[in-house]
Amino acid sequence: MTKPTKPFLQALSGEALPRPPIWLMRQAGRYLPEYRELRTRAKDFLDFCYTPEMAVEATLQPIRRFGFDAAIIFSDILVIPDALGQPVRFVTGEGPKLEPIRSARAIDQLDGERPEAFLAPVYAALRATRAALPVETALIGFAGAPWTLAAYMIEGAGSRDYATARKFALAEPAAFNRLISILEDQVARHLIRQIDAGAEAVQIFDSWAGALPAYGVEAWSLGPIRRIAERIKAERPEARMIAFPRGADAFMAAYAACPAIDAVSLGQSAPTSAFSAVRDAGAVPQGNLDPVALIQGGAVLDREIDAILAASAGRSHVFNLGHGITPETPIAHVEHLVARVRGKA
Amino acid sequence: MTKPTKPFLQALSGEALPRPPIWLMRQAGRYLPEYRELRTRAKDFLDFCYTPEMAVEATLQPIRRFGFDAAIIFSDILVIPDALGQPVRFVTGEGPKLEPIRSARAIDQLDGERPEAFLAPVYAALRATRAALPVETALIGFAGAPWTLAAYMIEGAGSRDYATARKFALAEPAAFNRLISILEDQVARHLIRQIDAGAEAVQIFDSWAGALPAYGVEAWSLGPIRRIAERIKAERPEARMIAFPRGADAFMAAYAACPAIDAVSLGQSAPTSAFSAVRDAGAVPQGNLDPVALIQGGAVLDREIDAILAASAGRSHVFNLGHGITPETPIAHVEHLVARVRGKA
Repeated sequence: MTKPTKPFLQALSGEALPRPPIWLMRQAGRYLPEYRELRTRAKDFLDFCYTPEMAVEATLQPIRRFGFDAAIIFSDILVIPDALGQPVRFVTGEGPKLEPIRSARAIDQLDGERPEAFLAPVYAALRATRAALPVETALIGFAGAPWTLAAYMIEGAGSRDYATARKFALAEPAAFNRLISILEDQVARHLIRQIDAGAEAVQIFDSWAGALPAYGVEAWSLGPIRRIAERIKAERPEARMIAFPRGADAFMAAYAACPAIDAVSLGQSAPTSAFSAVRDAGAVPQGNLDPVALIQGGAVLDREIDAILAASAGRSHVFNLGHGITPETPIAHVEHLVARVRGKA
Repeated sequence: MTKPTKPFLQALSGEALPRPPIWLMRQAGRYLPEYRELRTRAKDFLDFCYTPEMAVEATLQPIRRFGFDAAIIFSDILVIPDALGQPVRFVTGEGPKLEPIRSARAIDQLDGERPEAFLAPVYAALRATRAALPVETALIGFAGAPWTLAAYMIEGAGSRDYATARKFALAEPAAFNRLISILEDQVARHLIRQIDAGAEAVQIFDSWAGALPAYGVEAWSLGPIRRIAERIKAERPEARMIAFPRGADAFMAAYAACPAIDAVSLGQSAPTSAFSAVRDAGAVPQGNLDPVALIQGGAVLDREIDAILAASAGRSHVFNLGHGITPETPIAHVEHLVARVRGKA
């Protein structure tokens, strides 16, 4: 294995660089005018994701504009339920909608052989993106974690506390565990196919890990993510693995301690002291600038950027937000962020 | 000062009892048929809170039925904005609604002299409840924390991430800090008046502390709560103080380390290892049974009760839920919970 020379991959290998590499969650998105223009050409959001030339263009737009150290393929975590036969619609202003799955029978009807062909456009987009990227820019694939996908599949939509999914997990443990197990396998296969299509690192988004009761973390989030990471490391040892158990702030060191997890992404609720905790447990911290500070800009933004840089000075770190960039974020603030992280502002 | 003989107050003083005292957040509530019957007699929710005979009856109902070690006065955290002149309505199925406050001028119009008389029915209810309670049952007063109240006042309703309030805090720091400061004073005064009316302990609910970016915790949650607790301890040294910074799991030890905070209540996302962290920092842990496990009952419920009891065996602890009890919770499960915590099931 040759030593990686892309800064993002160097950082994920534990190298302390003079300046951390930077990318932003949801960097291909509505805050960019060129994205909003592109978006008008697809009839709905998942069509956009499944049209390789559009997904490639969306993935490349923020790289051209800001020169981020990594591109993340333009896709969505809900392509997995959609591919398994639980159709997903995106309703403007309301987020994703699915016909909820709340029985063992509905879970048995998910078709585990369907995703490979169904998601071929995602892999095609990765191949084309990889070919088009500058030589120093890494390519990231991703998937939702089993718990977060199961939560959407059972609720049928986003939720404040995922109470229906949590109740189902206790009331129907055999069915729920079967669903988690199916998703664990499907997420691993989807990530491996993304790696084979050119992804050099993959990120698992457990967006609703913070809604879990502590007793569910090992069984429903940490355990499945650890096994997915181990399988990927066994089958594709060159790929880097990032876990993002958003909001599970009492458990960050436990995720970081998994040998197959290279980096742990931290939400903005994690203090900078969590960076050391992640490193001490054996992983590289990623994050965790508050997206609201990026909207605000000015002295607040500089203070928060500098606090993160100071907490990681001389140590490995991947600069990112604590959550996705929001549509109202001024482009100029993103330009300033990138320049400042690179010591040029 | 005489040694308290009520188990709840003994536990809050750091005593390790053979069995922890128990009460439940929202124990006076819709899971009780006698509460639902009582509720039909008030035209809206805040009228219910402001009618002492009804508030007293609601407060006493769960004490009569389950013999909890503490009664919490039937009221709401939003009585403070309502009393300050920002009227609060409760819309069935949608939660609280307020005309949002988003300017320095609107904040200046809040009337800080209005709450004492406006909230007289709350204090009357406390006095009558204290007189009616069994001798071994303690009485708890409460208030929302400044951040949580400010979040509702700025958003105008509940929210998934309180982004509008967080943006306002950065965009209008002088106005936001003025609002936090007003609320800090009002919360302290409301709690002191509750103590003078018979509350032996008070709990501060920072329900949305988990939505704060790490850099906002000290300025907007921990600092105000610490100063409120210090003022109360200075003016009413016999009163016990419980903080509930829900979801701020990376900061529990920091809240516990405040000398004026006697106990820290933990949400269900906190692992049982957090109990020791709270004790090591100098406070008594309260919590943190998953309300969903209480709905489920059976072996899951017993396992979770026993895990909490085992983690606190021989140490000080106040048994509670990690969040409020939900309307669909079976009465029989609550009976079983109380019996098991007391070693009788």
